[in-house]
Amino acid sequence: MVTTTRPSEKTTHKVIGTRPIRPDGVDKVTGRAIYGADVTLPGLLIGKVLRSPFAHARIRNIDTGAAERLPGVRAVITAADLPDPDKGMADVGEASATYRDLSHNVMARDKALYQGHAVAAVAAESASIAEQALALITVDYEPLPPVLDLVEAMKDDAPLLHEDLRTNELGTLSDKPSNIAAHARFLKGDPAAGFAEADVIVERTYTTTMVHQGYIEPHASTAYWNADGKITIWTTTQAPFAIRDNVAVLLNVPVSRVKVIPTEIGGGFGGKLPPYVEPLAAVLSRKSGAPVKMTMSRTEELQASGPTSGSRTHVKIGAKRDGTIVAVEASLAYEAGAFPGSSVRFGSLCMFAPYDIPNMQLDSYDVVVNKPKVAAYRAPGSPAAMFASESALDELAERLGMDPIELRLKNSAKVGTRMANNIPFQHPVGNVKVLEAIRESDHWRSPLPESTETRKIGRGLAMGFWPNAPLKSSCFATVNPDGSVTLVEGNPDIGGTRASLAMQLAETLGIPYEKVIPQVADTETVGYNDATGGSRTTFTGGIAVYELGQDIKQQLIERARILWQLNPEDAIVYEDGTIRGPKEGQQLSFDQLAAQLFKTGGPVVGRASVSPKHVGFAFGCHVVDLAVDIETGKVEILRYTAAQDVGKAVHPSYVEGQIQGGVAQGIGWALNEEYVYDEQGRLVNASFLDYRMPTSLDLPMIETILVEEPHPPHPFGVRGVGEVPIVPPLAAVANAISHALGHRFTDLPISPRRIIETLYP
Amino acid sequence: MVTTTRPSEKTTHKVIGTRPIRPDGVDKVTGRAIYGADVTLPGLLIGKVLRSPFAHARIRNIDTGAAERLPGVRAVITAADLPDPDKGMADVGEASATYRDLSHNVMARDKALYQGHAVAAVAAESASIAEQALALITVDYEPLPPVLDLVEAMKDDAPLLHEDLRTNELGTLSDKPSNIAAHARFLKGDPAAGFAEADVIVERTYTTTMVHQGYIEPHASTAYWNADGKITIWTTTQAPFAIRDNVAVLLNVPVSRVKVIPTEIGGGFGGKLPPYVEPLAAVLSRKSGAPVKMTMSRTEELQASGPTSGSRTHVKIGAKRDGTIVAVEASLAYEAGAFPGSSVRFGSLCMFAPYDIPNMQLDSYDVVVNKPKVAAYRAPGSPAAMFASESALDELAERLGMDPIELRLKNSAKVGTRMANNIPFQHPVGNVKVLEAIRESDHWRSPLPESTETRKIGRGLAMGFWPNAPLKSSCFATVNPDGSVTLVEGNPDIGGTRASLAMQLAETLGIPYEKVIPQVADTETVGYNDATGGSRTTFTGGIAVYELGQDIKQQLIERARILWQLNPEDAIVYEDGTIRGPKEGQQLSFDQLAAQLFKTGGPVVGRASVSPKHVGFAFGCHVVDLAVDIETGKVEILRYTAAQDVGKAVHPSYVEGQIQGGVAQGIGWALNEEYVYDEQGRLVNASFLDYRMPTSLDLPMIETILVEEPHPPHPFGVRGVGEVPIVPPLAAVANAISHALGHRFTDLPISPRRIIETLYP
Repeated sequence: MVTTTRPSEKTTHKVIGTRPIRPDGVDKVTGRAIYGADVTLPGLLIGKVLRSPFAHARIRNIDTGAAERLPGVRAVITAADLPDPDKGMADVGEASATYRDLSHNVMARDKALYQGHAVAAVAAESASIAEQALALITVDYEPLPPVLDLVEAMKDDAPLLHEDLRTNELGTLSDKPSNIAAHARFLKGDPAAGFAEADVIVERTYTTTMVHQGYIEPHASTAYWNADGKITIWTTTQAPFAIRDNVAVLLNVPVSRVKVIPTEIGGGFGGKLPPYVEPLAAVLSRKSGAPVKMTMSRTEELQASGPTSGSRTHVKIGAKRDGTIVAVEASLAYEAGAFPGSSVRFGSLCMFAPYDIPNMQLDSYDVVVNKPKVAAYRAPGSPAAMFASESALDELAERLGMDPIELRLKNSAKVGTRMANNIPFQHPVGNVKVLEAIRESDHWRSPLPESTETRKIGRGLAMGFWPNAPLKSSCFATVNPDGSVTLVEGNPDIGGTRASLAMQLAETLGIPYEKVIPQVADTETVGYNDATGGSRTTFTGGIAVYELGQDIKQQLIERARILWQLNPEDAIVYEDGTIRGPKEGQQLSFDQLAAQLFKTGGPVVGRASVSPKHVGFAFGCHVVDLAVDIETGKVEILRYTAAQDVGKAVHPSYVEGQIQGGVAQGIGWALNEEYVYDEQGRLVNASFLDYRMPTSLDLPMIETILVEEPHPPHPFGVRGVGEVPIVPPLAAVANAISHALGHRFTDLPISPRRIIETLYP
Repeated sequence: MVTTTRPSEKTTHKVIGTRPIRPDGVDKVTGRAIYGADVTLPGLLIGKVLRSPFAHARIRNIDTGAAERLPGVRAVITAADLPDPDKGMADVGEASATYRDLSHNVMARDKALYQGHAVAAVAAESASIAEQALALITVDYEPLPPVLDLVEAMKDDAPLLHEDLRTNELGTLSDKPSNIAAHARFLKGDPAAGFAEADVIVERTYTTTMVHQGYIEPHASTAYWNADGKITIWTTTQAPFAIRDNVAVLLNVPVSRVKVIPTEIGGGFGGKLPPYVEPLAAVLSRKSGAPVKMTMSRTEELQASGPTSGSRTHVKIGAKRDGTIVAVEASLAYEAGAFPGSSVRFGSLCMFAPYDIPNMQLDSYDVVVNKPKVAAYRAPGSPAAMFASESALDELAERLGMDPIELRLKNSAKVGTRMANNIPFQHPVGNVKVLEAIRESDHWRSPLPESTETRKIGRGLAMGFWPNAPLKSSCFATVNPDGSVTLVEGNPDIGGTRASLAMQLAETLGIPYEKVIPQVADTETVGYNDATGGSRTTFTGGIAVYELGQDIKQQLIERARILWQLNPEDAIVYEDGTIRGPKEGQQLSFDQLAAQLFKTGGPVVGRASVSPKHVGFAFGCHVVDLAVDIETGKVEILRYTAAQDVGKAVHPSYVEGQIQGGVAQGIGWALNEEYVYDEQGRLVNASFLDYRMPTSLDLPMIETILVEEPHPPHPFGVRGVGEVPIVPPLAAVANAISHALGHRFTDLPISPRRIIETLYP
């Protein structure tokens, strides 16, 4: 019998909530950690990709003969070397369409659909030979008119990216080809009736442009296709199991033939979920018989990995004079890039989630354009949508003469409130608490500095929401004779997985954090784990290690029973790392029992596999003070405070770091970052010199307030913290600039150029 | 409810008994497999060891100054850089003495005790710099008289290796220092009374010399002592967990600070159980701050790794005229090398194990001499002892005019017979069956070729015994969506672990062998596993994967219950890879259920940890025909047949290979292999040019007969096959030569020199 105090009933934790050193820290700061590009193998070849210079072009012919004849070139491939997804794929059910697009995105087959789209690849004995070989490949392109603008792309007479793409129109396939891949709708109540009751209506259109996750480490993968048919891939990825599964489908081999070894990862933010060079490196390896490493340059990353959508969102909010919101309508169109699949539906779900609004109609459009296929980017879909909704709410508060916090509190969602998708909040949520935390913060209570003639000061506030994703996690562990426990987990450690899972296992077992030795394993070593992403890793991984701990505790109790020669019915209690028998003084510490396991049947090993159904919805509220230099258009962030309901902060330093990182990215999106295309669809700012991300010199220390409203179904109350913090900054900054300048900006980024052009039209 | 047919009740297996391709085959034949010396890391240094030129010498002083000043040298260490085991060690209980010796063996502290004993080590930027540095180290030795001969060493006035070593005399420490570390005895019945009944007594003394395992891959280890205190060791070893534990104790760090990653291994045979360079590489790494690789040369291997004991065994056998053996006495003395711990006691246990003898006294002596500390070597202790007993039995048969098989059958042990240690055979054993198998073999029934003037032909027969060791095994597994299962095990794959464990798991789950993907994991990834050795890996590992299979099957049944929406009491049966429900036609194949696991709660992961109490005793009987060229003394093996009770041959090709390899080693021991020391204790044949091992050109194809007397407590009846086959060849060959020449040879090797010197004294 295991008797454990349910952590949610506990008032104090011993490990959770502390700030220990991360297990991977020393390797990372001393440069010993192996990232994607650090992998090396005997006989390693270097792979490079030839990419389309055109945003839209038919590929008539590819001549690789000269490249193949170049000394030092070991393999040249085109799409013809990959299985043709139109000529039979592994049966993966409804996902087939997605895999077909993935195959076409990995290597263009008949058409290049964006500048940078891969058309051929080379493996050679050095990078320079590989690059020379690329120059020797002749591609006969028939340029086609590119489709770059959302509004243009949606027109009936727009050039088509895919002649066979028909709109999924509210669940039914339309009969006419279009660049609109899907039109979905959330409908609740009667919006028309709601607006009829409204005293005030705010209605505006907002736009954002494509931006990139800007992870510091580019994609880098090494593949070896062994003579026995086994493919091993070392890659920097958030999702080793998804890479395994994708590569297996794209190359038409069983998943058991593919082993993915995740390297350390220098940022992902959603951009390291899909495969890019992995399948190409594998096919080059098969053709050359040698391992092949492929590393993307920053230009390739910007042109041809998966940024997030540019968007256009029309919002209409109706409220009564007392601030009660009676109806909202929105229409969101997101760029999917070259293939369907933006996060627009998620955006429409999130945008009004903090509020209890009786009447809603939220339409979303997924639109293909001749730009790179978008990928997830931190809270995918939510930032652009909530930029619109939270900007509009700010304007509504202004129009009503209400405090923006009071407006939000008045309309706040609570347990039982149904979101746009009709799913209710079943457990307590922290939206009210984060608003109250900001209202009571030193920041909110502090007066703004005075504006000057040329330096205009403003304060802005906005909320953010992300539902979080639970998905699946597995893990193993072993109890060692010195009382340490080795933990084998399967989530690449981006934001501190090793530490956060080790801490939750230590808490479960009642042992010190330092006694848990975590490691991230490859896809053949640990059970299936979904990606590190969706703010799921500490959440679901935590549930997995908690269940793992129960498995271990149960076994330890049985070992103690053997040592004490007790009967099955004798009660043995495991509590706080101590095992107690029914007799007076009959007890063993975890360490003492660990040292005696070999006497009682060998080592204790544990396992868990979980797939939780519930999620821990997460809310944040941010406030920003900034100054706009009206001579240069430069915006300076003066102070920034982010309050977030984290459920329970397992390692508060990492939680703060996640929030600070998300805010920095959101500020970049608000002020500077944008994909700038010319009329031919060529990205003109494809480097970090020209694509402007904020650095530490651009920002003050971001202040954080951790609100802990535990999520009851999680053993430690954890929600998930990584996504939400990128959401509020877009609107918060825009709202602050509006207040500073008395002009409402609805198009991001609010760059110096845009400010100057607006102020001096 | 899991319902499985107990394999021992099965008449047929689907996977066990087949001969599939080994999973590691392609990597090994294409040269891609990473062995010890193949490991490389950024900034890798090369470590080299300075070794004593003296077999026995006091170390007065070591001056490393000049070596330290040599450019390119990054660290120089002596024993002073290792924790002094006399000044406090981690508390490891009774094992402390062993660890103390291990520490002194790894690096000489006050005395060098054999030629090649490590006295200092260097890490440098290249091997040549390291070697130059070794030449710059000045050691002030005081040479002492070496003790090289067993008989001399045991004398009261012999020079002492260890001034504090007192004999463990039948369980009591004697009060006088000695080179005899231990004297043990097995006593059964009344030997004196037994001999009084004997009609015939054979009494002789037999000797063997130190021989080496001769694994092709030398010891090679790379260590990195990280700035966070974590030590990672890549090493070629049979026992990654023992290396972990040993290094932890020798370096006085918790075991959880040491991670051992086993590389592929090119042979071990017991010689790759102890640590040699691992702790030195670790300390050099700590001192240099860089990873350090150390690879032993063949000369270092022969001088300073762990060969097996030279021995001297006195045997006396008494029998009645009808062949009934009434009493045996034996006195065995084994060289332990420089530190106590030979396998002499095992030898005395094995020597008469095949027989039911009422009266026995078997004395064994463990003796230190100025030679390298011995290690295990295939059936450790048994070959030298059974060379004596099986030679004496052959002579007894001759004296009685009995067929050697009939003599052995007449006296054969059976269920209930107690061995010398008083432990009875509780389960059926195969000693009779292997004798019968040889008696019925084509080989035994075929006449010998005629001898000629100069080419004398003989046939010899002998038995072998090894008790096998179960020890502990752990493993993990994951069921993949394509119906494959990844298996994580912890035993370096010397003789086919991956295949034999994958086969047993496949059999357990009722799935094809190819669907199991095994891997050998490091000490932080898989649970504790004892060494690959003792013929335990397929045996205990098989029990572990069987239990692992039960864990998985139970979980799969529960998943089927969810899919079929059945109640807990509804019977679900798992049989031959199919899960069947109570309703007509309600069934799912393993693959079908595997594909639906994500719907039913996520992946299925399994674990097992076992520590079986029972062993599967193993017997072999060999017959050899050979020709002796009396002009050159060269012995040619004409035909060789080995019958062995393997319990159940999981992969018959590997079992045959194990038997053939053991026989080849045994023949080398019998005919050619020996450590030749000069009077100063210098090994004069420390290379494979001068230390003569048989090659494939020296031997005919060894014929094998697999007898399968299942070991009932094992789920598949497995015993363990690796040790036994090295035991019989020594006596079989000696017996055949005796029959060819009419002279009984009692000293090994029966080399051309010995034959010529005997024939022409």
